[in-house]
Amino acid sequence: MITSTNNFSLAPELLADTIPLKSIGGNTLSLCYLGLMNNQHFPWLIMVPQQANLREIIDLSKADQHKLMDEISLVSTQMQTIFAPYKLNVAALGNIVAQLHIHIIARNENDAVWPNPVWGHAPTKPYDEEEKLKIINRLK
Amino acid sequence: MITSTNNFSLAPELLADTIPLKSIGGNTLSLCYLGLMNNQHFPWLIMVPQQANLREIIDLSKADQHKLMDEISLVSTQMQTIFAPYKLNVAALGNIVAQLHIHIIARNENDAVWPNPVWGHAPTKPYDEEEKLKIINRLK
Repeated sequence: MITSTNNFSLAPELLADTIPLKSIGGNTLSLCYLGLMNNQHFPWLIMVPQQANLREIIDLSKADQHKLMDEISLVSTQMQTIFAPYKLNVAALGNIVAQLHIHIIARNENDAVWPNPVWGHAPTKPYDEEEKLKIINRLK
Repeated sequence: MITSTNNFSLAPELLADTIPLKSIGGNTLSLCYLGLMNNQHFPWLIMVPQQANLREIIDLSKADQHKLMDEISLVSTQMQTIFAPYKLNVAALGNIVAQLHIHIIARNENDAVWPNPVWGHAPTKPYDEEEKLKIINRLK
């Protein structure tokens, strides 16, 4: 699968680790690629602004920074509506995969690594086909 | 010290862990409190929108979400200019301290916990008076 807009291509690690979502709560994004991390432990989405050579949020134009915030807000609201988490974690780190990407993770006090952050702590448990279909249906 | 705007008060943990900064690179923020984490291991700033009862970015109005993005961008640009890090980490987690706060951390490939995230991994090393003055001078 190739996801491309004006020389943008998704980093291979993000391509391998995520299941692409066409919409969330009936909304489509225009700036960002949206993917579900293939890890049953957490409802965990990845947003990737579809422009080439981005490493930091500040590499986006000011208008696109606002658009990114609008899309983070939309995705966060949907995650809150669908999963009613105790807390959302919203983060752009990029220590391992430098391509700019934003994590939106629904966290709960009884989840696998609470209250630690998921990165560097989280066990990985890929979705089986049934669970994958179930969460994609809840999200779309 | 009391930091307050319309019933806002800084969470006790954030008050205890940060050194307030009046400006960064000659700029003052209007939405957010800005503090330096008292940890020599990383240039690590904390931004706290000064409104009562915020837990999530989406608790802000849309206009204030854009203002938050503008201030994140300003602080990120200054951190990049001053410290030239390999990567910025920008994150709103709140698993431990639920009051909405944004971390802006300058990360380098030779820092104490690279490539792990700082939370849950980072050793704490408070600034001594000399180092504190030095970094505050670089930041202001």
